[in-house]
Amino acid sequence: MELKPELITIGEQAKQASRLLMPAGTATKNAALQNIADTLQEHAQEILDANAIDMANAEAKGLRKSLLTRLLLTPKQIDGICEGVRDVIQLPDPVGRGEMWTRPNGLRIEKISTPLGVIGIIYEARPNVTVDAAALCLKSGNACLLRGGSEAAESNKVLVRLIAEAIAAAGLPAAAVQLVPAGDRAYAEQLMRMNSYVDVIIPRGGAGLIQSVVANATVPVIETGAGVCHTYVHGEADLDKALSIVYNAKTDKPGVCNALETLLVDEAVAAEFLPRLAHMLTNGDKGPVEMRACPKTLVHIPDARPATAEDWQTEHNDMILNMKTVAGMDEALDHIYQYSTKHSEAILTESYPAAQRFLKEVDAAAVYVNASIRFTDGNRFGFGAEIGISTQKLHARGPMGLPELTTCKYLVYGEGQIVN
Amino acid sequence: MELKPELITIGEQAKQASRLLMPAGTATKNAALQNIADTLQEHAQEILDANAIDMANAEAKGLRKSLLTRLLLTPKQIDGICEGVRDVIQLPDPVGRGEMWTRPNGLRIEKISTPLGVIGIIYEARPNVTVDAAALCLKSGNACLLRGGSEAAESNKVLVRLIAEAIAAAGLPAAAVQLVPAGDRAYAEQLMRMNSYVDVIIPRGGAGLIQSVVANATVPVIETGAGVCHTYVHGEADLDKALSIVYNAKTDKPGVCNALETLLVDEAVAAEFLPRLAHMLTNGDKGPVEMRACPKTLVHIPDARPATAEDWQTEHNDMILNMKTVAGMDEALDHIYQYSTKHSEAILTESYPAAQRFLKEVDAAAVYVNASIRFTDGNRFGFGAEIGISTQKLHARGPMGLPELTTCKYLVYGEGQIVN
Repeated sequence: MELKPELITIGEQAKQASRLLMPAGTATKNAALQNIADTLQEHAQEILDANAIDMANAEAKGLRKSLLTRLLLTPKQIDGICEGVRDVIQLPDPVGRGEMWTRPNGLRIEKISTPLGVIGIIYEARPNVTVDAAALCLKSGNACLLRGGSEAAESNKVLVRLIAEAIAAAGLPAAAVQLVPAGDRAYAEQLMRMNSYVDVIIPRGGAGLIQSVVANATVPVIETGAGVCHTYVHGEADLDKALSIVYNAKTDKPGVCNALETLLVDEAVAAEFLPRLAHMLTNGDKGPVEMRACPKTLVHIPDARPATAEDWQTEHNDMILNMKTVAGMDEALDHIYQYSTKHSEAILTESYPAAQRFLKEVDAAAVYVNASIRFTDGNRFGFGAEIGISTQKLHARGPMGLPELTTCKYLVYGEGQIVN
Repeated sequence: MELKPELITIGEQAKQASRLLMPAGTATKNAALQNIADTLQEHAQEILDANAIDMANAEAKGLRKSLLTRLLLTPKQIDGICEGVRDVIQLPDPVGRGEMWTRPNGLRIEKISTPLGVIGIIYEARPNVTVDAAALCLKSGNACLLRGGSEAAESNKVLVRLIAEAIAAAGLPAAAVQLVPAGDRAYAEQLMRMNSYVDVIIPRGGAGLIQSVVANATVPVIETGAGVCHTYVHGEADLDKALSIVYNAKTDKPGVCNALETLLVDEAVAAEFLPRLAHMLTNGDKGPVEMRACPKTLVHIPDARPATAEDWQTEHNDMILNMKTVAGMDEALDHIYQYSTKHSEAILTESYPAAQRFLKEVDAAAVYVNASIRFTDGNRFGFGAEIGISTQKLHARGPMGLPELTTCKYLVYGEGQIVN
């Protein structure tokens, strides 16, 4: 594959920037972040004007309402974005941490965290991600190449120009944050194959975007995203707690990856639990939830819609709940084994052995007992920030904070040692 | 891509085996390893007979001597292989380790190590790797799919059959270790794209093999291998130590990835150091080393061969040393930045600031002061075992021991918590 010349230039600049960022001290990186927050706030009107152009174009193209909402920037949101950058200043620098040991021959070995290098981020038309990703990459000493959705092109251009100026004013390379041209799909495809320039690609967005990156990238990818998440109401569950947890997991924010898609109910409690839950799902204050039920569940909720084979593997991202009544733990584990995307899975139970078995046997990024799976999130886990939630197993799994944007290197201190 | 039916069967079996291996206890896994060592020892003659067929076929095909050496098994090597398996028993189980914390809302979160799942290993015709990889995967609770070079097909068939029987005798699934058919390249190519069945691919072998995996895999890859490694003799080096270290790094085992390829010599010491080194490289007891030198170096070693532009980027894996005289630290760092494959890099110096700058600015898996880069190795680092040396930055970098064959999951212990 011939790389486009613009991409070679961008790639070279990113590598050079990464070389300078790698040894940069925390104070310098924090000064750059402070400059970014201040600059964006000062130039809020310029950003809003660019965003207005993007919004007008998107409306003219008939973009869906939910996408328009994500594209829109308001003065309040710009304040929030700047606050987010200031929050990153407060987080500990993930670079330069580690452990050390001494070998019998006297060699001292340190394993120390170091920036990944150049990170490519491919995402949708959400200008807030531009600033968020830039701030997290900068704090962790990485250069980044940002490829945002084309609908946000004008907003992103202004944001990245302001960010680059702010970084340069702090004495770090402006090319630490660069935009990959939007619009032409070939740029995104080449970005995924720039192995000489890019150390990792992180796609953030819907299932289609992520699958396309996984299928086409030769640069290592951290896959984020898809969540067909389950909650299993065990035969010994506290049903009051279960009602509240299931309702929260489904309705708090149904469009996100850690929302509940499929409820598994033990048949021991189905007759008692399901009608109560159905009432809540229908009449709750978050609006009605459409229920798609297996035959055994339909016995207790006759007005639910029968679930299809496809429902069990679908991330609805909507006010729709798949419901299945299971004979017990074995069937619940088998169903999860078959359909889980290994994001977040929960058991609700008061039984110690049931909880322990579930925690041990379920393979997922986050496995819960007696809580809403909506907690799978960098901030809610206490990481202070999040670049995404990994649904693969390599490098990072689950919510990724700043430490996940580093790799390690071994420093070896010798006094003339040679091998025999 | 349509998967071959045999591969779907193998993949399904590996997934099922992985599900049972994941929660398996250390004692059970160690019992299986003990069985493997005992079984292989008992059936040594059967293994040797199969290997004799492979050797005869390979000789008839005119395989290179160095490859024949790697293919050959002797009774002594089988003892060594079994000893290696027993060593793995002694290593700590990498599964089930981690850290925990409590959130303000009372949620307790544990980050705990867990097996990766199914590991695909693609390697050359080295039957010892078959046993080594199987033992490391088993100890870390992973199922593995082994794709060895076709020249070792008969040896591998016997080895894997014996291993599978030994595992089953310990009550673990025989399909924990399976062979992917050799010979047909399509099997290897499909193995790299079995995303539904395989969690990671680890290629072990030469540059061609690794590049082909990186270019074709959709399953996440841990890249191992290529090392264009440098050692920089700084202006304040102890030249006696430097002679010994450079000679060791180049000649101890020139065919491996952590061998020295390019020597950088500070011009401050070039006149004194280079003639002494040239004498040692020519007359040392490990046999003569061919010197390929830059013009400045040729002044001091007139009988060296001039280095070409290609030499600087070549992993010779042979008794050949590239030699360049540099004006100082800046030029040394620039050369390393341009040509390093980020494997192992060393500075030899008595200067504290020079050592610190080199450690900070060189981006490589292992960065040394005053020691031979041949130490980059799982055993020499004290990990007890090694599945390979990663030259990428994701997941694992540098020598990979058992912990690198695990991922993590988060266990979340709640009492009814929901998000607001």
